[in-house]
Amino acid sequence: MKFAQRLELVETSAIRELFKLLGKPGIISFAGGFPDSAMFDVLGIREASQRVLTEQPGPALQYGATEGHPPLREAIAGFMAGKGVRGLSANDLIVTTGSQQALDLIAKTLLEPGDTALVEAPTFLATIQCFRLYGPQVLGVPIDAEGVRVDLLEESVKRHRPKLIYLIPTFGNPSGAMLSLERRLKILRLAVQHQVVVVEDDPYGDLYFGAEPPPSLLALSDQVPGSRDWLLHCGSLSKVLSPGLRVGWLIAPPALLQRATMCKQFSDAHTSTYAQATAAEYLNSGRMPATLDHVRQVYGQRAAAMGAALRRELGDAFSFNQPQGGLFFWGRLTGAGGALKDGQAFAKKAIEHNVAFVPGAPFFADQPDASSLRLSFATSDLDKIEEGVKRLGAALRS
Amino acid sequence: MKFAQRLELVETSAIRELFKLLGKPGIISFAGGFPDSAMFDVLGIREASQRVLTEQPGPALQYGATEGHPPLREAIAGFMAGKGVRGLSANDLIVTTGSQQALDLIAKTLLEPGDTALVEAPTFLATIQCFRLYGPQVLGVPIDAEGVRVDLLEESVKRHRPKLIYLIPTFGNPSGAMLSLERRLKILRLAVQHQVVVVEDDPYGDLYFGAEPPPSLLALSDQVPGSRDWLLHCGSLSKVLSPGLRVGWLIAPPALLQRATMCKQFSDAHTSTYAQATAAEYLNSGRMPATLDHVRQVYGQRAAAMGAALRRELGDAFSFNQPQGGLFFWGRLTGAGGALKDGQAFAKKAIEHNVAFVPGAPFFADQPDASSLRLSFATSDLDKIEEGVKRLGAALRS
Repeated sequence: MKFAQRLELVETSAIRELFKLLGKPGIISFAGGFPDSAMFDVLGIREASQRVLTEQPGPALQYGATEGHPPLREAIAGFMAGKGVRGLSANDLIVTTGSQQALDLIAKTLLEPGDTALVEAPTFLATIQCFRLYGPQVLGVPIDAEGVRVDLLEESVKRHRPKLIYLIPTFGNPSGAMLSLERRLKILRLAVQHQVVVVEDDPYGDLYFGAEPPPSLLALSDQVPGSRDWLLHCGSLSKVLSPGLRVGWLIAPPALLQRATMCKQFSDAHTSTYAQATAAEYLNSGRMPATLDHVRQVYGQRAAAMGAALRRELGDAFSFNQPQGGLFFWGRLTGAGGALKDGQAFAKKAIEHNVAFVPGAPFFADQPDASSLRLSFATSDLDKIEEGVKRLGAALRS
Repeated sequence: MKFAQRLELVETSAIRELFKLLGKPGIISFAGGFPDSAMFDVLGIREASQRVLTEQPGPALQYGATEGHPPLREAIAGFMAGKGVRGLSANDLIVTTGSQQALDLIAKTLLEPGDTALVEAPTFLATIQCFRLYGPQVLGVPIDAEGVRVDLLEESVKRHRPKLIYLIPTFGNPSGAMLSLERRLKILRLAVQHQVVVVEDDPYGDLYFGAEPPPSLLALSDQVPGSRDWLLHCGSLSKVLSPGLRVGWLIAPPALLQRATMCKQFSDAHTSTYAQATAAEYLNSGRMPATLDHVRQVYGQRAAAMGAALRRELGDAFSFNQPQGGLFFWGRLTGAGGALKDGQAFAKKAIEHNVAFVPGAPFFADQPDASSLRLSFATSDLDKIEEGVKRLGAALRS
């Protein structure tokens, strides 16, 4: 069987390697990129599910509009209004099968061979691969503690004339970085000035531990005339409610939304109405604020504990910024005191010590930083975090 | 915003036209391609949903494997075994977000510009468009009362060296035709001889009204050595249980399945585990056989009623074969007695008489038959079928 050439554009061995690390019994894993199942509001979801299947089983089990289940589109518009997005109606968004599908539809709609997509270095692995399947080159732009380096981003825009810039501005995977307000506004101006599409992927913005982060690019677009015409925004319930529902959304200008809807029609017809109706019922139940408070508090405690343990156990051999939200620590091995400097080598050594994380190199579209690594604190309780980081320290010194 | 050129390969105005026909109040619609909501086993699905969210809420609400929720893969393998497919294990299939996604993954994995895909003329509209987005030419091969004309198919294979042949052998949309056993075996031999991929899409095979149809190509592949290596099979719960779950599957040789899984990872990560776990629980509940008996009986009555009414009201102005399963009547306006001969014109006239159906021309990848049309009996009770067909008769004579 002869396969399409586009498959040769994608390198997945790095991903498979990551997941192979996780199978060992007795291991403490900081490798995952997912929320803690113990935090799901199972009762609330079960009640929503029952109401849907009792009161409106027909629409919940029948085919639905490709754009999404109307009550869910309304509920998402309301949810976004609560996050400072003004003037958004249900018609300005479509529901997608997780925000992964929003990325796929954006790529299918916009990207082709000869195009360039700029992403943060590092960025979400599955975005790099998703984009590459449609033929563009994908180039990274460095970040620092305040998120993507806007000066370098502008240089790259001028040099490569990209079709789009993909950013996870708030507590991004894997960096955990929070883009500053000043840089957010600069990016919106840059989009208008250079007529380049900016994709804001925002699955983590609600997971802040202390002060609220700056408003999303979408919420800020009011302040930069014309920027809304270049801005696509991906959202998701996966990190705040449940990934298993596979409910995400894409907010975009009408011309793009119409084409993405057409592509979606031929990708999966529509997202599960059963899951959509349940999600809509949940959002309308009024339980979401308490759910968000709960996950913020628990993840905040875990992040604080991991930060303290990392400083204590790894010392100056690991350089990182304390995340202010999200699910991840990101940092670099410095080699101080002759410790390991290579993330991949450290990951292998760590497995021997029964603790797992993912090395950072695969998160770069180009020019990987071999000393980097990602740790997730989301699925480990405080005892496991203490014990796991101790094992990391032992592995690093062994 | 500049969109990707692939979007120019797709013509959706025909589809939009179809759906615009359906908005009029008081209309009797034979236009849909979906099952009757009143036939959903709501009680069984609600019980399955409750058990899942009570007994195993974690896995049902968490991220899952891209290949599918393991209990559902097992249940589908068992379901297929019950339909005469031997030697199938859970690893031979992946779960997809409806069978529409299986089609998209097949196209993404196999088709590129320069390729040819052969389809039945007529065939499922969304397959034509789904394939075209990946760049191949899509060519139709005529059907008759016994399904695709295998003699013409072989000629076309020799001439065009297609990458794949897409067929809905059993009660296909829109033709309702049932491919004969003899032709099924010929197609399997043809696949091996010409080393061409055959895609069997089988959402309707369980919806037979009298005798069981011939076994699927997949079930027959045992009889034709080597044919299983060229055979892809798409299945779905949409027509027999609920479209809203968006649970379909793809059975394929390992090399293709592995690549389709990689593509799926970047399309939507995985199908809703919430929907998958519910579907698995339902399949394992033992309710499916009774559900199938029920829908077969009800659709069979409706098909019989529509056939009798069409013969009585339209007479020799409409030529069709009585379907032995599925959801559709397909036929041609003959123009007898000076009646309308154009499907599109008749559809417009019918709307004036408060009855809707879809003209057949859009279902052809090339060389449309303007006299053809499709009628679905699935969502109308016997009284509506009588009244609707009377209106069709009045429209045709007006």
